Amino acid sequence: MKCRVCKQTAAVALPSHHTAFCPECFSAYFARQVERAIRKHTLFEPGERILVAVSGGKDSLALIHQLAAQGYDVTALHLDLGIPHSSGPAREIVTAFCAERGFALRVVDPVEMGLAIPEVKAAVKRPICSVCGKIKRHYMNKIAHEEGYDVLATGHNLDDEVARLFANTLRWDRDFLGTQGPLMPGTGKFARKVKPLCRLSEFETAAYCFLHGLKHGTAPCPYSKGASFTGHKKLWGDLEGHSPGSKTAFYERFLTNGKPAFAHLAHQEREPLRDCGVCGAPSNLDLCGVCRIRDQLAAAKEKSGAGPTQAKTL
Amino acid sequence: MKCRVCKQTAAVALPSHHTAFCPECFSAYFARQVERAIRKHTLFEPGERILVAVSGGKDSLALIHQLAAQGYDVTALHLDLGIPHSSGPAREIVTAFCAERGFALRVVDPVEMGLAIPEVKAAVKRPICSVCGKIKRHYMNKIAHEEGYDVLATGHNLDDEVARLFANTLRWDRDFLGTQGPLMPGTGKFARKVKPLCRLSEFETAAYCFLHGLKHGTAPCPYSKGASFTGHKKLWGDLEGHSPGSKTAFYERFLTNGKPAFAHLAHQEREPLRDCGVCGAPSNLDLCGVCRIRDQLAAAKEKSGAGPTQAKTL
Repeated sequence: MKCRVCKQTAAVALPSHHTAFCPECFSAYFARQVERAIRKHTLFEPGERILVAVSGGKDSLALIHQLAAQGYDVTALHLDLGIPHSSGPAREIVTAFCAERGFALRVVDPVEMGLAIPEVKAAVKRPICSVCGKIKRHYMNKIAHEEGYDVLATGHNLDDEVARLFANTLRWDRDFLGTQGPLMPGTGKFARKVKPLCRLSEFETAAYCFLHGLKHGTAPCPYSKGASFTGHKKLWGDLEGHSPGSKTAFYERFLTNGKPAFAHLAHQEREPLRDCGVCGAPSNLDLCGVCRIRDQLAAAKEKSGAGPTQAKTL
Repeated sequence: MKCRVCKQTAAVALPSHHTAFCPECFSAYFARQVERAIRKHTLFEPGERILVAVSGGKDSLALIHQLAAQGYDVTALHLDLGIPHSSGPAREIVTAFCAERGFALRVVDPVEMGLAIPEVKAAVKRPICSVCGKIKRHYMNKIAHEEGYDVLATGHNLDDEVARLFANTLRWDRDFLGTQGPLMPGTGKFARKVKPLCRLSEFETAAYCFLHGLKHGTAPCPYSKGASFTGHKKLWGDLEGHSPGSKTAFYERFLTNGKPAFAHLAHQEREPLRDCGVCGAPSNLDLCGVCRIRDQLAAAKEKSGAGPTQAKTL
């Protein structure tokens, strides 16, 4: 198979685009897709300070690497979640990656805030993936907002977005269908949030890392087994295999035709937020979700005789 | 396995309802689901004249049988599509079925109207399933409207509705998402259209026919191979197997949460219709879709030297 652009031997075949590229032309294609997402959805401008959430996986490393290559002002943000055999290696990967390339790195340690994920998992009855997601979003937003970044960028790719959109659609969840997308505008204490990889599949971000020699973590989170998104990704893999381009069409048409219908409703229905009484984060209730989790954890520890937690606040 | 109601040996297991029934209690359950659809979506009232589209397959026979059992005033409408080895046996099944039970039967013969499906298939470039669907909807609506029926009922089951909704959602087709559902209110020359089996799966309508000894056609249409809905039904079979109740949840939540968002837009965006210059049917253009198909067919025949078609109009 030959590269569509330069006719050299192709290294990456992309059936959903009916094409294939050599390593160099694939990188140019990858950069174009990121540029197009940034421009089409007005994600950010050159010169803005971008905080990039970096887990150590392929998507986030590809994202910060590509944004830096395009000349954007990037700072990496890594959350150390305190998960045994997982968080330590991830932190090492991110630290080495940023040091090697001279990227500024900000590490936040929820463990020090009394929120080690294994303890949260033991104390809280809800599925850990949703609780962990809440804690991550809380700190990412807090750092981006309070430390003066213009925007928070995450490495969500097309497969992530499609799996999430599909889950939201199966439930016809109006709130999420009215807001999901590559741009969540900043308002009040909410930082602007963007997903510049939304036009690229996880196969493409993996190929990008491989071709650029980016050493990323490959072990899935030990707690993610059986998460429903995994099933949806498989289903969408089958749909895409049967009809290449399905994922992109579903997502892009949602953004133009689906989302506006729900955004209109969500705007009418949403209740105003207040400030969390403890940490000041925006919240539906007097205490924000993360402070409630911290309270549950402290209560569970006290009950088990471990004594009250000495938690730092950020 | 025992019947949930009477504890006799169960004949039908329904994982999506976490239950199983003996033949008698299954029939009562089936009747309840039909009743509930009729009442919940205000499909029709006792005493209204219901035209039931009857193809000879399990769904339409189960539908007319059940509506008659509930005391509704039903007339069967059968379209003979002129498809070799398929339409003849279907017409025989419907004729025998109605004669045996004393149901009034109205047969319409698109072949006589210059619209035999095999000839249409040869003359028209578009996928035959969509063209055939258009012809069927045209005549069903025409008969219901012009012959004074209050409502047209079709045998679409939950699987049909979910597959169609899924296809509409993959494309985020606003017009269809704003109107799909068990009730399409009548307006102008459009008859009211209803789907009283929308709460029952195709497994359930098949079980109903089997338990009531209803002899129905089982051969799929010879032209339907590879139709995209077939793939979507398989996908939804997998989803339902993995998570029983998924289909019902997707459909019911669409009706309450999804459809209204699009109905609002569709209402604003739709263009007014005019009357077809030839047959008077409501149409976007001067000539309705079916009259355009008939013209295409006549032109193709003339070109091939078969001479102009002598088509009856209904």
